[in-house]
Amino acid sequence: MKPPVFRDYLTETDPAQIEALVRSTDFFSTEEIAIARELADDALTQSDAGHYRFILVEKDRQLGGYACFGRIPGTRSAWDLYWIVVAPDFQSQGLGKAILDQVEAHIESAAGDRLYAETSSRKQYEPTRGFYNRSGFDQAAMLPDFYAPGDGKIVYVKLLITR
Amino acid sequence: MKPPVFRDYLTETDPAQIEALVRSTDFFSTEEIAIARELADDALTQSDAGHYRFILVEKDRQLGGYACFGRIPGTRSAWDLYWIVVAPDFQSQGLGKAILDQVEAHIESAAGDRLYAETSSRKQYEPTRGFYNRSGFDQAAMLPDFYAPGDGKIVYVKLLITR
Repeated sequence: MKPPVFRDYLTETDPAQIEALVRSTDFFSTEEIAIARELADDALTQSDAGHYRFILVEKDRQLGGYACFGRIPGTRSAWDLYWIVVAPDFQSQGLGKAILDQVEAHIESAAGDRLYAETSSRKQYEPTRGFYNRSGFDQAAMLPDFYAPGDGKIVYVKLLITR
Repeated sequence: MKPPVFRDYLTETDPAQIEALVRSTDFFSTEEIAIARELADDALTQSDAGHYRFILVEKDRQLGGYACFGRIPGTRSAWDLYWIVVAPDFQSQGLGKAILDQVEAHIESAAGDRLYAETSSRKQYEPTRGFYNRSGFDQAAMLPDFYAPGDGKIVYVKLLITR
């Protein structure tokens, strides 16, 4: 089996593939899927001038997963992990952690020293929270009822190593 | 003295005036001033399709202050107060509270029921935190060192009345 192939740029076919990938997880709302697509469209148009950075991973010539992240405006060196998604067929193989490693390497090389990630407090997101906990993130805040009644937002932070 | 005049739309001269207003407070970084300007430019171009809503207030034919706010994507009914700024000449006259009242009325009429605001934990922002505390906001979270070492982010929330 070939190792996964990472890249940090988008090609013309990626926004549609990202949309299909996000939809295939059955994890995201219609609005969230539209946002994921829009960010990819914007990043493709704006190239390096855009705010959003991407890491994509291909495995067996398929888009296996991706992350979207960016420096938080107004902060000295804090970044946000907006999206990290692994295709259902490629889950539980360490691909999420491998994508995260690439994200962190990019942020550290840009002198970023903290990475924030947000997720829901709902039961459905237990695997997501488990992923952040296993990957060195700590819970920094909990905002009850943020997304909807009974659906709070949990903010995670991971301190990175400045090189 | 004439009462302040509120409006919820931008005209062509507003982005430059907003930029000048934000700069005049001596409260915001160059990057923050650029963001304030960019949001106004975008809102003017995109009109109702845009994400960002504005409330502006004129007093004595000058831009006395403004707020920029928007529904938080992915939430059912949560909104973010991105900017609320009052010109130095018009501070301590209740104009900030009057702008906030207009913001809340707009959000409530769009069935929004919670308003988030973020500010810095630095001493310089004591008046800002005092404003939120007096205006019915509660502290929901504190993220240490978010903006920079020693400069944390405080998240406030105010529960609104759904009509």
